[in-house]
Amino acid sequence: MSCKYKTLLRKGLCLTLLRTSFLGRTALFYPRKVGATTRITASWIWTHASLRGISNSTSGNNHFSLRTHSCGEVCSTHIGREVTLYGWVQYVRQDLFVILRDFSGLVQILIPQDEALRKTLFDLPLESVVMVRGKVQLRPEGQENKTMSTGEVEVCADSLEVLNKCRKLPFEIKDFVKKSEALRMQYRYLDLRSSQMQYNLRVRSRLVMKMREYLCNLHGFVDVETPTLFKRTPGGAKEFVVPSGEPGKFYSLPQSPQQFKQLLMVAGMDRYFQMARCYRDEGSKPDRQPEFTQVDIEMSFIDQAGIQALIEGLVQYAWPDEKGTMSTPFPSMTYEEAMRDYGVDKPDTRFEMKLVDVSEAFGNTEIQFLRDALQQPGGCVLAIRVPDGAKHLKGKDLEALKETAKTQFNQDVSIVLVRPDGSLKSPLSRLLSEGARLQLLQMTLASAGDLVLLAAGTGDHMRPLLGKLRLQCADLLEGHGVALRDPSVFHFLWVVDFPLFLPKEDDPEQLESAHHPFTAPVPEDTPLLYSQPHKVRGQHYDLVLNGCEIGGGSIRIHSASEQRYILKTILQEDLSVLSHLLEALDSGAPPHGGIALGLDRLVSIMVGAPSIRDVIAFPKSFRGHDLMSRAPDFVSEEELKPYHIKVTWPEGDK
Amino acid sequence: MSCKYKTLLRKGLCLTLLRTSFLGRTALFYPRKVGATTRITASWIWTHASLRGISNSTSGNNHFSLRTHSCGEVCSTHIGREVTLYGWVQYVRQDLFVILRDFSGLVQILIPQDEALRKTLFDLPLESVVMVRGKVQLRPEGQENKTMSTGEVEVCADSLEVLNKCRKLPFEIKDFVKKSEALRMQYRYLDLRSSQMQYNLRVRSRLVMKMREYLCNLHGFVDVETPTLFKRTPGGAKEFVVPSGEPGKFYSLPQSPQQFKQLLMVAGMDRYFQMARCYRDEGSKPDRQPEFTQVDIEMSFIDQAGIQALIEGLVQYAWPDEKGTMSTPFPSMTYEEAMRDYGVDKPDTRFEMKLVDVSEAFGNTEIQFLRDALQQPGGCVLAIRVPDGAKHLKGKDLEALKETAKTQFNQDVSIVLVRPDGSLKSPLSRLLSEGARLQLLQMTLASAGDLVLLAAGTGDHMRPLLGKLRLQCADLLEGHGVALRDPSVFHFLWVVDFPLFLPKEDDPEQLESAHHPFTAPVPEDTPLLYSQPHKVRGQHYDLVLNGCEIGGGSIRIHSASEQRYILKTILQEDLSVLSHLLEALDSGAPPHGGIALGLDRLVSIMVGAPSIRDVIAFPKSFRGHDLMSRAPDFVSEEELKPYHIKVTWPEGDK
Repeated sequence: MSCKYKTLLRKGLCLTLLRTSFLGRTALFYPRKVGATTRITASWIWTHASLRGISNSTSGNNHFSLRTHSCGEVCSTHIGREVTLYGWVQYVRQDLFVILRDFSGLVQILIPQDEALRKTLFDLPLESVVMVRGKVQLRPEGQENKTMSTGEVEVCADSLEVLNKCRKLPFEIKDFVKKSEALRMQYRYLDLRSSQMQYNLRVRSRLVMKMREYLCNLHGFVDVETPTLFKRTPGGAKEFVVPSGEPGKFYSLPQSPQQFKQLLMVAGMDRYFQMARCYRDEGSKPDRQPEFTQVDIEMSFIDQAGIQALIEGLVQYAWPDEKGTMSTPFPSMTYEEAMRDYGVDKPDTRFEMKLVDVSEAFGNTEIQFLRDALQQPGGCVLAIRVPDGAKHLKGKDLEALKETAKTQFNQDVSIVLVRPDGSLKSPLSRLLSEGARLQLLQMTLASAGDLVLLAAGTGDHMRPLLGKLRLQCADLLEGHGVALRDPSVFHFLWVVDFPLFLPKEDDPEQLESAHHPFTAPVPEDTPLLYSQPHKVRGQHYDLVLNGCEIGGGSIRIHSASEQRYILKTILQEDLSVLSHLLEALDSGAPPHGGIALGLDRLVSIMVGAPSIRDVIAFPKSFRGHDLMSRAPDFVSEEELKPYHIKVTWPEGDK
Repeated sequence: MSCKYKTLLRKGLCLTLLRTSFLGRTALFYPRKVGATTRITASWIWTHASLRGISNSTSGNNHFSLRTHSCGEVCSTHIGREVTLYGWVQYVRQDLFVILRDFSGLVQILIPQDEALRKTLFDLPLESVVMVRGKVQLRPEGQENKTMSTGEVEVCADSLEVLNKCRKLPFEIKDFVKKSEALRMQYRYLDLRSSQMQYNLRVRSRLVMKMREYLCNLHGFVDVETPTLFKRTPGGAKEFVVPSGEPGKFYSLPQSPQQFKQLLMVAGMDRYFQMARCYRDEGSKPDRQPEFTQVDIEMSFIDQAGIQALIEGLVQYAWPDEKGTMSTPFPSMTYEEAMRDYGVDKPDTRFEMKLVDVSEAFGNTEIQFLRDALQQPGGCVLAIRVPDGAKHLKGKDLEALKETAKTQFNQDVSIVLVRPDGSLKSPLSRLLSEGARLQLLQMTLASAGDLVLLAAGTGDHMRPLLGKLRLQCADLLEGHGVALRDPSVFHFLWVVDFPLFLPKEDDPEQLESAHHPFTAPVPEDTPLLYSQPHKVRGQHYDLVLNGCEIGGGSIRIHSASEQRYILKTILQEDLSVLSHLLEALDSGAPPHGGIALGLDRLVSIMVGAPSIRDVIAFPKSFRGHDLMSRAPDFVSEEELKPYHIKVTWPEGDK
C-alpha cells in the first residue's frame, strides 16, 4: 500500500488541528476577565486532551461495541494492530487524511491511494458518521503531533464505510465557532458535541457517581426515590400544578423532598440520600431552571457538626483530581460575621475588601448626612477599601457604583480616593477634620492609590449595599485586568447561626421562617422561643462556594409539640395541612437533620461555566422554553377534558 | 451493679422475640401458595437476621453519628466495650430488659436495679426513641439466643435517655400484625419500619448502586439527566399535562426519555444511562403507579447482540448474592415461538404445560364445532396438558377456567380428564374416534390423571386464550399445594423478532407500531418495508422474568429518510411534531440502540413482593392517591389563575 506523505500538507494540518482543538479539559476553559495565569492556550488543550481521566475504564468503553477501540485511545502500543473505529468526520484534507472524532478524542486516518476509498471520501460532508478499518502505524519521523494525544500514530485505512451522511449543519462543530444561545438551544444535539459540553456532562456524571460511592458504599446511606406528584403546599406559589383525573383535584411538583426525607427518618431508614429532581416555577429568573437537581441527604442521630463533617468528606471524596486537592474542614463563619464583614450571607472569601465600621472616625463630624445617619437607632458609617482602586477604576466605573447604590438601594455612596500624599480626593474632604481623615485611613488601612467607599445609614440597610458594591468593585477591577479571584481556586465556607425567624417583609410585626419551619433552634436558644422568638438562632447551615450558596440544611425539630408551637403560635400557619407530619413526629421520630446541595450550581462552578444551562443536557431557556421541541405547547380543548380543566384566555387573546 | 437474671423470664422473652421477628431477609418471605420449601420459619429469619449483607460497610454506618455502634452489629467482639446506642423501643419486659431496634437489627439491653433508670423506663410507650449508654457483656451461659444475630450478648445500661415518647400508634410494628393496605398507606412512615419494607428499600438501593458501578465505572456510561417537563406527544392520552405560565400552553410529563436518549446519541454521548423517573396516567389500573422508574440505556455503534450481552452482564453483576447465582447468556425465543408454545409474548418458562396444536387428531372429526373451527382460515385445535390436573383440580376450578374463557374471550373450552385406564372423561369423548383419542393423548403426552384443555378456533384467538388458561391452571394447582414455580428461581428470557407493525385494533387496514416508531427493521426485512410492511420484523427485544415483561428495547432507525418513510407513509403521522428528531437524524446520527428496564417490577419480583407498591417508599393507591398527605387535592381558583386554567365541574358537582 502506498502511503505517500506530503510534509507541507501535514504541517498545514497540524495547524488546523490546533485551531479546531476538540478536547479542552479544564476549569479555566471559559474566558475569564483575569490575567495571563488563567488564559488557555491551544497547546495546553492538546497536552491535556485525553479522556482517560473522565471515563474510569478505557477498555470497558468498547466492550459490547462494534468498534475495537475508541478514537482517542489509539496510541503507539497499538502499532501494527488492526483496529475498527467508528466516529464523526471532523476534518478531511485533500482526500489524504480524515480526522475522525468520537467521545474520546481525535485520531488521524490516512487514506491510501485506493480508487474505491477515494471515491467514498469524495464530497463527504463533515460530521458524517463513518466506520474505518485499518492498521495503526507510527507517523513518519518528524511528523508527530505532540500536542495531540493520538499524535504519535495514525491509522492507515483498509476500508471506510459511510454510515450516515450529514446534511449541511446550522453551525460548525468547532470550539472557536461562536453560536448564539438560541441556536445552541435549538440544536442542542449539535451543541452537545462540543468538547466543553462533552466534558461538562461527563464530569457531572463522574462527580455524581463518586458521591454515590461515598454515601452508599462507604457510609451506609440508602438511595430512596420519593414522589414528585405530591400535594400542593398552601401558598406554594412556585409549585407547578398537575391536574388529576378527578375534577378540581391537582397534584403539585414539589420544590424539594423535605417532608419525605423527614418521614423516612421517622420510618427508621437511618440514612437517606437521593439525587432528587425538584421543580420551581419562577417564570424567567435569570439562570434558574424550572427543574433542577439536588443532592438530598438526611440522617438520624446526628448533630450539626456530624452533617458538616459528612459533607466535607463527600465533597473531598467526589472532587475531580484535575481540580486540585481540597483541604477540610471548611472554614465556618456565623451569619452575624458574614453580614458584618461581607454584607451578605454567602460571602465570596476569595478576596478581602471587607466592610469596616468607621462610625468612630465620624463621632464629632460636621458633615450633616453622616451626623444624621449616626443619630438614628442602629446608625453607622461603613466603608470598604478598594486596593489600588484609585489607580484602576475610571470615572465611569465610579458612576456605575453610585448608580447601583441609587437604583437598587436608594442610597448615596461617597467615594474617597487616597492621593499619593495621603490626602483625600472627595467632596467630603473639605469638611473632614484631620483627625477624622487619619482615623479613617487607619481604620480602613487605606493608603496611597486606594479608594474608599463610604455609606451611612442603619447597618441593616448599609451592609447589603456595601456587600453588593464590594462584588461590583471586584468585577470592575477584574475587567481592568487585576487578578483578584483565581478561578482555579475553590473557597468552600460554612455559614452558621442564622436567625430562626425574620420579620415578614410585608408585615414586619409578623415572623416568618428564615429557611423553613422544620429547622430546630440552637439548643441554648430554645427557651427564647417562648419569650423572644426573634432572637432565636436556628441550627441551620449554608454551604457557600466562591460566593454562591450551593447548599443548605438544618437539624430538624423532632418534637411534635415544639413543631406545633412554632407552626401555630409563632408562624400562625394552618396545622391541618401538615397534620401527617405532626402525627409522624408524635410516632417515635428520631432526632435528625440533613442538607441539600444544588448539584447544577456546584458543577457549574466546578467547571467554570457561566450558567447552569451549561451543565444540564437539555435545559430550558430563560423563559422556560425548550427551544428544540418547542415545549410548552398548546394542547387541544379535547385533550384537556379528562383533566376537567379549561384554558381561561386573557382578553383579546385567541 | 447487680444484674439479676431470671431464667424463666428470659425464656419467655426469647419466645416473644421469635414471634416478633424483626429482620426477615429473603425472597421467600412473602407467603406463597406453594409447599414446605418456600415457607419461612421464625428460626430462619433470626438465623439470617443480619444487615451486614445489605449495607456494604458496617463501621461506616456509624461514622459522623452520635452512636458508637448500631444495634444489630453488637456482638461478642465488643465485650467489655462501652457503647452508645440509639433506637426504638421494640419491647420492654418487666422493667428488666429493653429490646432496642434500629435499621440494623435488635439488641437486648439489660436494665440494672437502679431507681433512676427504672423510673425512666416506667410506662415508656413502645416505639419511643431512646439513647442507651452501657457496657457489652456476654449473656450468662445457657441464656444465649442463637436465632438472634446479637443473641450472644447484651448491653448492661449505665444510662438511658428518652429522646421522643411515642403516642399510641394505629398498629404495632410487628411483622405478624396484619394491617389493611389503606392503613399501611396512610401511616406509611410506620409501615416502612417493618423488616420487610426496610429490606425491600435497602435491597433496591443496593441493586441500583451495583448497576451504576457496572455501567459507569466498568463500561464508560455517562449518567445524564433528561427533562421531565417536556412537550406533549400528540395522542399521548396517558401523559400528565402541566400548565405553564403562558395561556393555553402546557408541558407534559413524558412516559419515557425516548427522544432524549436518541438525541444524546446524535450528540455523540456514546453511552448514556439514567435511572429515569417516568410518568403515565392510567387511572386505576391494578399495580400501576402514576410515576415509576426505569433503568434507561442507550448506546452508539452497537447491535442487538451487544445490548443483550450488556444487560445480561448488568443483571448478573447487580444481582444480590443472597438471591443465588445467575447464568448467562439468557435463553432467547422468537415472538412466534412464544406465541406458539405459550400463547403470550412474555412466557413464564418456569413450568411446562405448553400449547400443542392437535388439529391433526381432528382431521376427520365428526364433532361439529371442531370441524367448523378447522375449516376457517387459520383455524386450529389447540390443547394444553395439565399434569395431574384430574387429580388436583376440583369442579369449581374447572368452572373458573371455563368462566375465564367465556367472559374474557367469548369462547368455549373443552376439558378432558384422562382416566386411569386412558379413557377420556368429557362430553366430547362419545364423539371421538379411537384414533383421535390415541392421537390426542400421544400429541399432548397426556396420561392417567392428567387433564387436557381444548380450544378450537383461529390460532390468533386461541393462543392468547390458552396462554391465559395455562397461567390460571398454574395458580389453581399452586392453590392446591402443588409446587410448580419455585419462588427462589429466576427465569430470565429474551423474546425477539417481534413484528414491526401490527394492524390497528380499531382499523385493521391501518398499521401501527408494535412498540414505537423508532424501532429499526431486521436488516434482511428492510426491503419488505416498501412492499409488505406487515411482514417486517423489528430489531426489538423484550426481557422477560418469570413471565413478566421487565424490559424492552430496540436498535433504532438512524436514517432520516427511513424514519420519515415509516412515520409518514406507513404510520401516516404528522411529521411536524417530530421535526427536531428527523433533523437530528439528518445531522450525523450514529447507528444506535438501547433498552429500558422497569426497575420497580424487577425489584418486586426479586424480593417476591406481591405488588410494586412494596418496593416504592411512598406509592400511590390504586386510584392514584397519596393516602398520607391526601394528594391530589383541591386548589383554589385564585391559585390556578397564574396558569390560566379553570376547573370545569361536571354537572351537579360543587
